[in-house]
Amino acid sequence: MATAKFTIGIDFGTESARAVLVNVRTGEELASAVHPYADGVIDEKLPGTTRRLDPDTALQNPLDYIEALKKTIPAVLKKAKVRPEDVIGVGTDFTACTVVPCKRDGTPLMALKQYRKNPHAWVKLWKHHAAQPEADRLNEIARERGEPWLPFYGGKISSEWLFPKIWQVLNEAPEIYEAADRFIEGADWIVWQLTGVEKRNSCTAGYKAIWDSETGYPSDDFFKALDPRLEHVVDEKLMCDITPLGQKAGEVTERAAALTGLRPGTAVAIGNVDAHVSVPAVTVTDVGKMVMIMGTSICHMVCGHEKVACEGMCGVVKDGILPGFWGYEAGQSGVGDVFAWYVKNAVPAAYEAEARRRKMDIHQLLEEKAARLKVGESGLLALDWFNGNRSILVNANLTGLLVGMSLGTRPEHIYRALIEATAFGTYKIIENFHRNGVPVNEVFCCGGLPEKNKLLMQIYSDVTGREMRIGRSAQAGALGSAMFAAVAAGSVRGGYDSIQDAAKKMAGLKREVYRPNKERHAQYAALYREYEILHDYFGRYQNPVMKTLKALREKAHGG
Amino acid sequence: MATAKFTIGIDFGTESARAVLVNVRTGEELASAVHPYADGVIDEKLPGTTRRLDPDTALQNPLDYIEALKKTIPAVLKKAKVRPEDVIGVGTDFTACTVVPCKRDGTPLMALKQYRKNPHAWVKLWKHHAAQPEADRLNEIARERGEPWLPFYGGKISSEWLFPKIWQVLNEAPEIYEAADRFIEGADWIVWQLTGVEKRNSCTAGYKAIWDSETGYPSDDFFKALDPRLEHVVDEKLMCDITPLGQKAGEVTERAAALTGLRPGTAVAIGNVDAHVSVPAVTVTDVGKMVMIMGTSICHMVCGHEKVACEGMCGVVKDGILPGFWGYEAGQSGVGDVFAWYVKNAVPAAYEAEARRRKMDIHQLLEEKAARLKVGESGLLALDWFNGNRSILVNANLTGLLVGMSLGTRPEHIYRALIEATAFGTYKIIENFHRNGVPVNEVFCCGGLPEKNKLLMQIYSDVTGREMRIGRSAQAGALGSAMFAAVAAGSVRGGYDSIQDAAKKMAGLKREVYRPNKERHAQYAALYREYEILHDYFGRYQNPVMKTLKALREKAHGG
Repeated sequence: MATAKFTIGIDFGTESARAVLVNVRTGEELASAVHPYADGVIDEKLPGTTRRLDPDTALQNPLDYIEALKKTIPAVLKKAKVRPEDVIGVGTDFTACTVVPCKRDGTPLMALKQYRKNPHAWVKLWKHHAAQPEADRLNEIARERGEPWLPFYGGKISSEWLFPKIWQVLNEAPEIYEAADRFIEGADWIVWQLTGVEKRNSCTAGYKAIWDSETGYPSDDFFKALDPRLEHVVDEKLMCDITPLGQKAGEVTERAAALTGLRPGTAVAIGNVDAHVSVPAVTVTDVGKMVMIMGTSICHMVCGHEKVACEGMCGVVKDGILPGFWGYEAGQSGVGDVFAWYVKNAVPAAYEAEARRRKMDIHQLLEEKAARLKVGESGLLALDWFNGNRSILVNANLTGLLVGMSLGTRPEHIYRALIEATAFGTYKIIENFHRNGVPVNEVFCCGGLPEKNKLLMQIYSDVTGREMRIGRSAQAGALGSAMFAAVAAGSVRGGYDSIQDAAKKMAGLKREVYRPNKERHAQYAALYREYEILHDYFGRYQNPVMKTLKALREKAHGG
Repeated sequence: MATAKFTIGIDFGTESARAVLVNVRTGEELASAVHPYADGVIDEKLPGTTRRLDPDTALQNPLDYIEALKKTIPAVLKKAKVRPEDVIGVGTDFTACTVVPCKRDGTPLMALKQYRKNPHAWVKLWKHHAAQPEADRLNEIARERGEPWLPFYGGKISSEWLFPKIWQVLNEAPEIYEAADRFIEGADWIVWQLTGVEKRNSCTAGYKAIWDSETGYPSDDFFKALDPRLEHVVDEKLMCDITPLGQKAGEVTERAAALTGLRPGTAVAIGNVDAHVSVPAVTVTDVGKMVMIMGTSICHMVCGHEKVACEGMCGVVKDGILPGFWGYEAGQSGVGDVFAWYVKNAVPAAYEAEARRRKMDIHQLLEEKAARLKVGESGLLALDWFNGNRSILVNANLTGLLVGMSLGTRPEHIYRALIEATAFGTYKIIENFHRNGVPVNEVFCCGGLPEKNKLLMQIYSDVTGREMRIGRSAQAGALGSAMFAAVAAGSVRGGYDSIQDAAKKMAGLKREVYRPNKERHAQYAALYREYEILHDYFGRYQNPVMKTLKALREKAHGG
């Protein structure tokens, strides 16, 4: 029997990076380490200056990412007592679209003294929303020109994505645009730091940069129509050589080895995105199986054999989730966030007191009370758009709704109605894929919510009429990265030759399965019919009152 | 200068009766006394038995009313140090429709041993809702027959009113129906106890018993269509001789004098209803001025010169509010109740804690925070139908709605939206009257809410574009009864010859006037347009989801 081999996966999140060291043969997670970014999310003041940032700005310091490599890799090696020579690969995943402006050699512009005080020289984090004017204009022009890629992004490019962010730099800091040889995803930049080679992955290129495996990026003509200065943005600032997920990006350099304690030559996987990398980590490596990353929001991913346009999906990308498949992504922009809002703003003192007395978390208490209700017993129906609707309506101006309140309505009625509303939202997404030729037969879940709320999982199963399984690992992102690291190493080095092979050994599920109850599914069908009517009435602007109220709110704030 | 003269007004409420002793010349309230009914609202078990009552049953013990006379009248005489010979009249008002089944001499059936254990021998209180099947059937038959009076009751007779309640007795206890020589309103029964003479007032006859000054009660044919045994219900169980408000019913008998300490021969006003009697108590004695009794619900009253049919009004009755005018009534079934629901079920612990720390009532704290918001700033819009909609939709199956929630929505946003929703509901009622030929130019308020919530009053003024004034007395009902007592006495005995004359001297307003702000009224117009769209969409069953949810809720409860 050969010596045990290991890989390290590192998940670069919004506030911190988390590394896990995994046994390649068994998937056992031997050690993990978290490194919070020193500068965190920069949204008030640029570090080292007194300069206040515009609202909707969200930046990061790329040197924090390097620091995370330096801290977490030695930490997991030490904790697990694993020798560097037994680590056959390292893989990473990242938030996206998170954009690093840098020089030709990868040096971030913010690391150069002359640019440091300009916010546009820093990393624009995924949730930087200040490029909305650019996104609006881009969508308008794309629609006018009938750009063929638009339907495959749900008809709308988000302000969070690459080109609106680049265009904002050009508009507000042309000198930074000029100085940047590259605008590159954090996902690719961190791999570059490890390997010394600039490579770009198919996932972020496809979902965030409007790249297609057959037709490439949008045409120079399109970019010229946006702004003549952008005509050659692809050639000048990006890279057209895109590598599918599942490939090896390169090997750890001497410099990276010195930084991390890994051996030079260790295989490094091509960059990946936090949500997408979780798919094989919950055992999914084929079509027909949706993966839901369930936390403050839900990200829905499913693979298909063909490319079809489904209303309101976030994107469909070849090799975007798993190599060899078309990867479909959709999302609900508020789920855990909505329950957190409810608990903070609308749970009465008497319930807080009961939870304290019984030493329960308030969510547990609400779950306990709500679980006693039958389907329909609340008399309530909600729309869960407290944070807008990402799929399938793609409209940030939509808001929440609750209907059916009587003087007998209790907090647990509302709590359950909110859970049900998010379940209906998921069902809408599932049905939208399923009916348009992207089958969804089973659902696999990971993230914080499935660990915490059994009632929610059962309701999702009952509403959707589908079995729900939960990934074994509490850190699916980092585990997925470790799996792709094993594939980058390949079987010759003790890893695997495909993510399918890696998943068979390294991924796993919890024993618990949530199975739909037939009777409740039928009862929910009656409620879902009502949900669909309200969904279209408010969401498709048969009555645009949500937009009107938002406009009145903004006017009141401004006036 | 003559000796000061006084009258006593007694307001028979749901839980207690309240008497005030008033100076006839000045309206000064010299003393008041409250008597809680020993048996209160009987809705669980019949007193003296172990018999559990059906749900929706609400009964009272009529002997509690007698006890109230016996306790409160001597109490106010004593407190005010007024001699009985200086009391020139006594007036009463009552909840309605509150039905006493009794013998020809006024003896309540429940006071007779052989009937005491039958719930139908007791008083059916206004909020007894168990006659809904009878009301539904009555409405169906009235519609089929095209009964001419139906449009003047908003197209629907309530289960709270006289004939559904009588019919329920017939259906469930025919022996009680048989034994009852009379079914009489508490309002008239209490006057009978004081005067020894059975008389019926125009207000309850008109609003609760489908009586019209020109055409009388519905025809025998109609009652026969309901049930052959009801054919002669009017002749057999009621009385057709109806006395307009403002008349003297009779004089205090020797027996009543012994009970109350009043002098025999003291004038007694014809019976009245708690809400209606308040109208002159807030100085209103003419057309164009709406009176709102604002508490858990709102009762809207306005007088007109003519009889017109307005959608969803509760009724239009000659002499029903003020002698000589057509009295129009409408109502909102949940107002203070909705805010109480909100505070109990959806105000977070942090706000409760802040209120405690600052020694404020939680309503005060919410009012303070909500008052800082501009019109539209909440981003929310609500429908206030938590307790159904009385006017103008007349539909108990309607429920509440809240739209516009985001993750930034705060409790004060919701609180303000709920207040605004009730204001929009009032505006709808005002506009409905105003546009149909019953002008509403100013609004006069009484009840608990106007005393407590300045923000609410200002919002009502801003939304409706009308000045709002508030009655001086905190007990407008009892004061109004004392005013009608002065009219019953007449000027020869030191009272007045008309309620107008009485109002000039005895009624008054607070100094404070709420005046509409033009800018805010215009801003609210934009929100009200949206309210109207939702009002019709949900309320007129363009989308019957509220009814569907209620049916699903009932099914879940039953199943």
